[in-house]
Amino acid sequence: SAGYDMATGSEMNGSGNLMDFLEESVPEVGMYEDFYTIDWLREKSRDTDRHRKITSRSKESLWERIKGLLDAWSGWVVMLLIGLLAGTLAGVIDLAVDWMTDLKEGVCLAGFWFSHEQCCWTSNETTFEDRDKCPQWKTWSELLVGQPEGASAYILNYLIYVLWALTFSFLGVSLVKMFAPYACGSGIPEIKTILSGFIIRGYLGKWTLLIKTVTLVLAVSSGLSLGKEGPLVHVACCCGNLFCCLFSKYSKNEGKRREVLSAAAAAGVSVAFGAPIGGVLFSLEEVSYYFPLKTLWRSFFAALVAAFTLRSINPFGNSRLVLFYVEYHTPWYMAELVPFILLGVFGGLWGTLFIRGNIAWCRKRKNTKLGRYPVLEVIAVTAITAIFAFPNQYTRQSTSELISELFNDCGALESSQLCDYINDPNMTRPVDDIPDRAAGPGVYAAIWQLALALIFKIVITIFTFGMKMPSGLFIPSMAVGAIAGRMVGIGVEQMAYHHHDWFIFRSWCRPGADCVTPGLYAMVGAAACLGGVTRMTVSLVVIMFELTGGLEYIVPLMAAAVTSKWVADAFGKVGIYEAHIHLNGYPFLDSKDEFRHRTLATDVMRPRRTEPPLSVLTQGSMTVEDVEALIKDTDYNGFPVVVTKESERLIGFVQRRDLIPAIRNARKVQDGVVSNSIVYFTEDPPPLLGNSPCPLKLWRILNLSPFTVTDHTPMETVVDIFRKLGLRQCLVTRSGRLLGILTKKDVLRHMAQMANQDPESIMFN
Amino acid sequence: SAGYDMATGSEMNGSGNLMDFLEESVPEVGMYEDFYTIDWLREKSRDTDRHRKITSRSKESLWERIKGLLDAWSGWVVMLLIGLLAGTLAGVIDLAVDWMTDLKEGVCLAGFWFSHEQCCWTSNETTFEDRDKCPQWKTWSELLVGQPEGASAYILNYLIYVLWALTFSFLGVSLVKMFAPYACGSGIPEIKTILSGFIIRGYLGKWTLLIKTVTLVLAVSSGLSLGKEGPLVHVACCCGNLFCCLFSKYSKNEGKRREVLSAAAAAGVSVAFGAPIGGVLFSLEEVSYYFPLKTLWRSFFAALVAAFTLRSINPFGNSRLVLFYVEYHTPWYMAELVPFILLGVFGGLWGTLFIRGNIAWCRKRKNTKLGRYPVLEVIAVTAITAIFAFPNQYTRQSTSELISELFNDCGALESSQLCDYINDPNMTRPVDDIPDRAAGPGVYAAIWQLALALIFKIVITIFTFGMKMPSGLFIPSMAVGAIAGRMVGIGVEQMAYHHHDWFIFRSWCRPGADCVTPGLYAMVGAAACLGGVTRMTVSLVVIMFELTGGLEYIVPLMAAAVTSKWVADAFGKVGIYEAHIHLNGYPFLDSKDEFRHRTLATDVMRPRRTEPPLSVLTQGSMTVEDVEALIKDTDYNGFPVVVTKESERLIGFVQRRDLIPAIRNARKVQDGVVSNSIVYFTEDPPPLLGNSPCPLKLWRILNLSPFTVTDHTPMETVVDIFRKLGLRQCLVTRSGRLLGILTKKDVLRHMAQMANQDPESIMFN
Repeated sequence: SAGYDMATGSEMNGSGNLMDFLEESVPEVGMYEDFYTIDWLREKSRDTDRHRKITSRSKESLWERIKGLLDAWSGWVVMLLIGLLAGTLAGVIDLAVDWMTDLKEGVCLAGFWFSHEQCCWTSNETTFEDRDKCPQWKTWSELLVGQPEGASAYILNYLIYVLWALTFSFLGVSLVKMFAPYACGSGIPEIKTILSGFIIRGYLGKWTLLIKTVTLVLAVSSGLSLGKEGPLVHVACCCGNLFCCLFSKYSKNEGKRREVLSAAAAAGVSVAFGAPIGGVLFSLEEVSYYFPLKTLWRSFFAALVAAFTLRSINPFGNSRLVLFYVEYHTPWYMAELVPFILLGVFGGLWGTLFIRGNIAWCRKRKNTKLGRYPVLEVIAVTAITAIFAFPNQYTRQSTSELISELFNDCGALESSQLCDYINDPNMTRPVDDIPDRAAGPGVYAAIWQLALALIFKIVITIFTFGMKMPSGLFIPSMAVGAIAGRMVGIGVEQMAYHHHDWFIFRSWCRPGADCVTPGLYAMVGAAACLGGVTRMTVSLVVIMFELTGGLEYIVPLMAAAVTSKWVADAFGKVGIYEAHIHLNGYPFLDSKDEFRHRTLATDVMRPRRTEPPLSVLTQGSMTVEDVEALIKDTDYNGFPVVVTKESERLIGFVQRRDLIPAIRNARKVQDGVVSNSIVYFTEDPPPLLGNSPCPLKLWRILNLSPFTVTDHTPMETVVDIFRKLGLRQCLVTRSGRLLGILTKKDVLRHMAQMANQDPESIMFN
Repeated sequence: SAGYDMATGSEMNGSGNLMDFLEESVPEVGMYEDFYTIDWLREKSRDTDRHRKITSRSKESLWERIKGLLDAWSGWVVMLLIGLLAGTLAGVIDLAVDWMTDLKEGVCLAGFWFSHEQCCWTSNETTFEDRDKCPQWKTWSELLVGQPEGASAYILNYLIYVLWALTFSFLGVSLVKMFAPYACGSGIPEIKTILSGFIIRGYLGKWTLLIKTVTLVLAVSSGLSLGKEGPLVHVACCCGNLFCCLFSKYSKNEGKRREVLSAAAAAGVSVAFGAPIGGVLFSLEEVSYYFPLKTLWRSFFAALVAAFTLRSINPFGNSRLVLFYVEYHTPWYMAELVPFILLGVFGGLWGTLFIRGNIAWCRKRKNTKLGRYPVLEVIAVTAITAIFAFPNQYTRQSTSELISELFNDCGALESSQLCDYINDPNMTRPVDDIPDRAAGPGVYAAIWQLALALIFKIVITIFTFGMKMPSGLFIPSMAVGAIAGRMVGIGVEQMAYHHHDWFIFRSWCRPGADCVTPGLYAMVGAAACLGGVTRMTVSLVVIMFELTGGLEYIVPLMAAAVTSKWVADAFGKVGIYEAHIHLNGYPFLDSKDEFRHRTLATDVMRPRRTEPPLSVLTQGSMTVEDVEALIKDTDYNGFPVVVTKESERLIGFVQRRDLIPAIRNARKVQDGVVSNSIVYFTEDPPPLLGNSPCPLKLWRILNLSPFTVTDHTPMETVVDIFRKLGLRQCLVTRSGRLLGILTKKDVLRHMAQMANQDPESIMFN
């Protein structure tokens, strides 16, 4: 019979080998259930087995050899596909957002599918301002009542702007609610959790991909204070999950799948900012859990292909990879480090405020009636956003345009309000070397508007992030920082202009020199605020300079990023993503903070002193009935197997999900296995006695190498082991006798307890 | 008495706690010996203990609290110091190399300490060529015989060039031989090994720092085919080690010390190339073993400070961070990927050739008489290098100047031989948009000289790397690639110019357009060759674009780097650094290649079947004499402790280096401990019987949480555990009974055996 007694002495008995055997006969075995933590060691060992099989087969024939090579290359193929699809989707999203954002203000007569910029592309006006007013482009008031300006036109445009915004956001939230509830939020906290080995079925599914892509366009176009960066990472990870299905190497192994997802996250950031290296570092620093060097290379490849695809689509029409390309004409000076560090402090404070405020609001949403009306919430926030945003030009335009304008240096030809400086009529200097000038009325007006925009953005972003819409926070955070930075920059510039003789300016800022670049301050402020919220450092700086092409400004950026991190860390160690992970109670074992308490494994293991003893199996004294009763009475994921209940000497571990089908199967196909058959977990059971029933041999499903620690092992070591090896559970022994069991959840619970007991210890990290 | 029986039941009994106790009474305990592998878990647990002590003390008084905060910040202070010193040293080295390289050709009359460039700085000639010939600078022939040109002047200059080269290299090798034998080579293989947890006393000492800095200047100035990059990493690590001594947190903990060294390596690359991000990634991808996020942040800080210090010293006089700044005026085209990939193939082949040739030569040096005459070898290689290098202008100039020239795009004002194109007299285009032109005689002459230089560099570099001199291989490798790349680039350019109508050129290269930039090919070639030798990918690309400022050329660079890695990997998985590690037999557990064989722990553990049983201690039946005999008869680093020899149930592990002083100490200070005292490893030994001698209680030095695996654990899991947790040894049990022991060396030996048995399996990685 094809039962379980085909044990061959020479073969090894790891769980890997077993899986091959079981997967064929019992389909559901080897799959994880929803909201379950995977066992990294087991996944790794399964992959090694698969690999060994291919290697040994490849010696048999040329075809198998080719198949083996194809298998080895499938990783790169998946990366290529992810890069292509993520890049394409990002391009499509950019184009659609561009069009729909402009649709709120008007429509193109040459073809309604053109955005404002595309509509006026062929227009032959020379200055930017004139080109913006090309005849083919009609604002809604022009189109409906024929009036381009005036109070009634303003009100009409205002109304239609708000209406479009409400339409888009209503459509978005309805789609999310009806078709893919997982499509909301930024997705990064969940992806972090998934990458650390948690299973959330459907989170990276096809529906989520489709709905998230569509609703992301709607959410950004509606003018809400959110960005597309986090959701793009989610979209890219969905692409990665999709392409995993093509190769059983990835689809059947949750560990290998996570390697692909790590790379996909890198591709997502790569297309969000056009920053392939920043993407890889973001995945490494912020998102990934297990990031071997092989994944580093593949991530880089995927990120590169994605960025390249996006560049080929060229949604911004400037064939640049960098989103906010800047070119400053002056270096920075040592003394400027002081305002840069102050911006870092501001960024840290903003990060703290945002995280505390947002988490408090999200907790309120979770725990009160508020959470029951997600559609209404989105509509309300959109209405408030649109109503407050329209009157102020800096909030009406899209946030990335705003950032771009704030980053820009004022050239001689610049016509924006922010560049309304009073020119010296005697100036004979070349165009790209304009000295500092006195601010004109436009600059002062802009400062007021920017201050209002700053307050508005700070408040509304706190309420926006976490709604039932796709929402990233990179762009809003950067906007907050860029506004603050530009204002500081203008302040320093005017101070330097009017007080050349002050001690601090004398050394580096002579009259008539171009000393201060307010755009650089905006850039530094953006980095500081983004850093305060996410606590990224290296990846942040790399993203910032890939974003702007400003390789020379790495020291100011780094100074601000580090200051911001220090300030924000002083108020609380966790970044926004970890805060949301904690809020949602995901089982995430953070690799950043260190566990430093004096507890031992024996203090944490189950059973506790007051609890009933551990449910164990014995290697050769329990009947099928006993085992079935044990399965029925408990809901543990697995059972340790000991020699006898008295000696408690541990010999192995059996997974519940292997045990159930094994017994069911044996009862069905193996003759003679009845309720009082003895279950043997040994390789060679003793010979049958007289008329005793046929024994059930389950040696093959026994994991003979369960992970053990002694009861005296310090918990810091246990935490380290769980983290680095990605264990699910670990058995606790003392001088070879089984004492208890420790699961990942026990460890997490204990860590949370200890952190609450002694919150001060984090200061000394 | 102050013996070992002060066991307090409430305290835990990990090795960490024990160390505190022992460190005070017995000074030598807790230190590792030379050529010994550290135990990462133990180091970590010691640090946690130290940290706990500070935290609990900090509650006592304000002063302790401040001390605690200072301790928490000491990591950043060390980084700052490393950055400052490494940047300063790199600046000094650059200046000294500049001066001494020029000294081989002539001397400055305005002051002998000026380099050629500094000498002619104030000269008011307009073109570069004329400025080079300023009157203050005299070649040796001008100075000695008054003839600037002619056969005799040439021969005189030739002779003096060779003499200076020989002087420098003789000085260098003598200094290395006499004062610091560890100062030779690039140092990166040894630093990799040290970072993985090996102890090599003096390798990062003060003498090595001093001598390596001085001899590096001599080695580079002598004109040998070597670079300063690898040695600068070594120098930076020496700085790191130096500053570790300032804080007991780092000097007394080998694990923490390695975190500092990882960051120092990043600072080293940062100053070698002016590439802070590349440095961090190099440390992550290539050098480091254990690289937590905290180290990532600190490395970045150190790298940044170092780069900033170097920029402040400004040794190149251009106040740029980038070494070979290039500015190309044309984008690259899809079709050019073909030659780029071909350059990648060339790079891979060069890498294979270099590694095989160099390793064969080094092995020969090790195993034959050759190794006994290091001074002679250096002198001979220098003589050959100098004699062949002088006649060819591309080998006579310093290698970094050569690379810089090859990377450069030919502007209209360029006077170099490589830019001797035939200009179209009717051309009216702006200076920075010169179309492709036909090559002139200068270009053809340059190609011949470059071809000779290529062959020369390829051959001589193989023999140079590994001599008893500081020698890096980044610059020579890049030079090989840059020469090949430039030649390919000129070829493609001329093909495109003469065959505009060919199918491949028709789409993107119209007549009169600037299609091909040979300098870009040189850059891609340099990346490919460097990649082939070192197998870096991400860090390579980042270093290349930080080096050149060419953020837009990331796709060509990546294509070449990946191709080169694939080609080189097909011939052998290891890069040059791993090859040297294997050659020297260092115990290095590489995290890159995966172990995929079907062996179990039982196949690898000691004792083997034919060997005598494991030497163990029992918990309460051996006398002091027995234990002393066991220590004397064996040389194991530690002994498992079992309940009884019959039951073989494991209870703990005792380190030899703890056991010896404990017994010695007890015999000295504890009354009544004599040779036939029973040694107890239990917490509560049974009461004394009658006139039996006073027992010796060693419970406190017993590690109650030794790491164990079962005999059925697959070796892949064991390798994973050793790698990720950084273990030194691991005990093997079966159902609680001790079977054997596995050390890191056993694991490494087994991995080497299996790799030799089945070399084919690596193809499917």
